[in-house]
Parts: sequence; C-alpha cells; structure tokens
Amino acid sequence: MSENIHPAQLRELIRRREHTAPTTGQCCGFTQANVIILPRDCAQDFMLFCSRNPRFLPILSVQEPGCFETAPLAPGGDIRTDCPMYIVLRNGEVEIVDDLKTLWRNDLVTFLIGCSFTFETALVRAGVPVRNLELGCNVPMYVTRHQMIPAGPFRGPQVVSMRPIPAHLVARAVLITARFPSVHGHPVQVGYPEGLGIRDLGSPDFGDPLDLAPGDIPVFWPCGMSGLAALKKSQVPFAITHAPGHMLVTDMRDEEFASC
Amino acid sequence: MSENIHPAQLRELIRRREHTAPTTGQCCGFTQANVIILPRDCAQDFMLFCSRNPRFLPILSVQEPGCFETAPLAPGGDIRTDCPMYIVLRNGEVEIVDDLKTLWRNDLVTFLIGCSFTFETALVRAGVPVRNLELGCNVPMYVTRHQMIPAGPFRGPQVVSMRPIPAHLVARAVLITARFPSVHGHPVQVGYPEGLGIRDLGSPDFGDPLDLAPGDIPVFWPCGMSGLAALKKSQVPFAITHAPGHMLVTDMRDEEFASC
Repeated sequence: MSENIHPAQLRELIRRREHTAPTTGQCCGFTQANVIILPRDCAQDFMLFCSRNPRFLPILSVQEPGCFETAPLAPGGDIRTDCPMYIVLRNGEVEIVDDLKTLWRNDLVTFLIGCSFTFETALVRAGVPVRNLELGCNVPMYVTRHQMIPAGPFRGPQVVSMRPIPAHLVARAVLITARFPSVHGHPVQVGYPEGLGIRDLGSPDFGDPLDLAPGDIPVFWPCGMSGLAALKKSQVPFAITHAPGHMLVTDMRDEEFASC
Repeated sequence: MSENIHPAQLRELIRRREHTAPTTGQCCGFTQANVIILPRDCAQDFMLFCSRNPRFLPILSVQEPGCFETAPLAPGGDIRTDCPMYIVLRNGEVEIVDDLKTLWRNDLVTFLIGCSFTFETALVRAGVPVRNLELGCNVPMYVTRHQMIPAGPFRGPQVVSMRPIPAHLVARAVLITARFPSVHGHPVQVGYPEGLGIRDLGSPDFGDPLDLAPGDIPVFWPCGMSGLAALKKSQVPFAITHAPGHMLVTDMRDEEFASC
C-alpha cells in the first residue's frame, strides 16, 4: 500500500517500475496533475487553448522546452518516468508506453493541468460523500455537445466529470469546489444530463459508471480529459499525455490550491 | 408607480393609506424585511428559536419592548403603520388589519427578519433569471416535512421558497446567494422536491406557482414564512406579522447584506 507515503517516494517507486497501477487514491491529500506534452511549435497554441478554456484546462505549471524536471510542483521528479503509464499520439494514432526515455526530445514542452481529484478530500471533510472514493473507482466522464473555444489546431468537445451528490448537499458541494478555481472550481451544470447531450449516465465515455441513489443529483464539473479529446481531434503530429488515472502525483497539498 | 421612489417615501404613502398593495417589486435595490411582533414574555423564546434556526429566521434587528420606531433599518419609520397589511394571531386565530395603532402595547417586541427578495437583484445582475420578478408574481413557498429546532413554545415545519433555475446557472445561483447569509444565503436543497415532502410543485402552500421550463432545476431556499408557520403552530396568545408580500421596506441597500 502506498496511499500514505510521500509523493516523492511514490514517484521513486513508479520510476523503478515497482508501482505500475493507477495513482487514484494514492498519497491522500497531495495534488495529482494531468500531464500534456507537446512539441514547442504547437505549445504556444495549446497554451492559448488553455487560456481560452481555463475552467476545463487550468494550467498549474508549464515547463521550459526540453525540461523533463517537474519542479516546482514535484521537486526531484522526472516527467519521462514518474507517471505509471503514458499515451503517445501521432496524427491521432494511439500508443501506450511505460516511460518516455527513448521518446524524449529537446523541443518538448510539458503542461501540468489541474485535476478535480484535488477538491475531493475537501468534499469528504465537509461531509459530502464522494462515491468514486467510497467505491475505489474512477469518476465517470462524458463528452458533451458543447465545444471548447478553439485556438490554432486545437478544438474539440467539452468533457465533464460527474459526481452523484445528495440534493441537500448540492449547494455545499458547489461552495466547496468553488474554493478551488485552479482545479476546475464549481460545477458547470447541475441535474440535467440531457442539456449536455448525455443520453445515458450509465455509459460514460471515460472512467467508471456510478449509480445515482434516490435523491442524488448528477453534478457535472469541467474535466481535464477535454485536453486529450482536443489532442485526438486536432491530429497534431506528436503529443504525449498520461494514461487515464495514471497521473503525476505532486508534492503540493490539495489545500494549497484553495483560494480562501 | 412607486417602484423607484425612496423607501422613506413609500413608507409615508403606506402610512397615509395611499399605497395598500403588496410591496413586491417596490423600491428596487432596497431590502424588505419580514416582521414578527410578540409580547415581551415570549420574545426571549422566539429569539432563541431564531438563533437555533438562523438559516430560516435570520434576525436583522430586534427592537426594544414597546418601541414602534424602525430605526436603524428604516429611520423615521413606524412599525404600527408602515406595512400595508398585517396578520394578528390570537391563540392561532387569524385577523387581517390595516394598522396596529389600536392594538399596540408597551410590551410588544418587534423582530425584523431577513427575506430572500434581497438577493434577487444580485441574481438578475449576474444573468440568473428570476422568474417571479419577470412575471411580477410572488415566489412559490412550500411547507416541508423537515422540522425547525424548537425553543420554548415555538416549533413547526421548515418552509422553503422555490425558484426555477436553468441547470447551467445553478452553481452561479448558489455562489451568489451564499454571499447573503443574513437573508437566507445559499439553497437548502437542489432538484429533489420529494426529499422535502413536496408532492406537487404546482400547488404551493403560499405564494404563486411557477412553471419549470425544460432544463430548469427547482432550487429551494430557506424561507421566513417558517416564522408564521411556527406562530400558528405554537398557539401563542398574541402575535402579529406582516401579511404575505406586505413587508417593511427598509432604507438598507441589498448589497449592504453581502458578506463579500
């Protein structure tokens, strides 16, 4: 079990291939980041894409071209080895790899993007049940009928995560997650999947389905998977991202992202 | 039309019986208060009742026994004459009166209680439609199956107001109304009338019904009518309250009740 070890130790285990599982539930209280890596010549457009869609792609850190170190968020870390699994995209074609050592190039720019896992601890502490944590599974994520604002080659659908929240705790969940604007913040929509173009909550596009209990309201937050969706749609010649659930675990505490 | 006159002028018109209609929509931007008047010997218990149920009965001001002046919230006002209509309760029996001049006693204590009308202007300014304002009607209010925390003789059901909010604006409505904790603050419940024991949204216990448009979510806020419900249920020998919609219009601006 590595749930309560320090993130630096977990990254060390991952680097040695002694931990290869998803990072979900690991290093409780420390922030996990979405990873997107692009060649320098399209990094500027992607940065613009993030800045135009900050609720979906909140930038926590952008590294210098060629820099594989992950400081300041994860000092001593190496982005080439410290996620358990990666997706490499070449003109939309997908390959899964364990590390990026042989793929690394001096023109690659690493983006670390906020993830809604960060506010889940705050929800639990405030008495709001987080079903995916209780069940030890991933959140369900859905491609919506709404589009991101494009920039350069980057375009694609808004992707949302869904958490079932008891009706009397919806306002509390809104208020708590609004404290964390750099990790997606408050929900984009409450209670109306049809309005997002979601036909069947039981069939998410990514992650695991979660049942609604009687009195649960489906609450939708912006999701960083909008980045992967845009990379696929954009057909850029080369891009890398973490495999879903196999994220970079940083040394930042979740509460460091609270605005107040 | 007295929508844009100063509250002091409106109170003057009401005092002279030149304005006898509900105060809904009057003096836009100025705060209206619920009025509850009780003999001194049960005022202490009622104050305890309010303090135990602050989301439902947020105290804006409590006057000295016998004091009919309404300063500081409404300087120059007179609580005996400045609401267009009152309800007098004697052991649960109801009488409607125009003014309190002949009823006034030196042991009467006036409570001014926050009202959710106060945050409606802020909602509209933030682009959240407020259907009761658009239609010029009252909000629908419902007696729920949840009980207030009792104090002395005071007990009764929690009463809620309902506003239909488009699903993509529910989070915004929560955040805006949370800025106004002294006028009921954020919703108590979102999207699940059955959970409150409400069988038919079309048949409110007080106020006017409001239709839900496709994609609207019924959002429920705590309501000061919980006070009237408790007065009726408690069967106190003597109590006075404003008639629904016929409130005290104060000189306080709505934004003065914003916490941030």
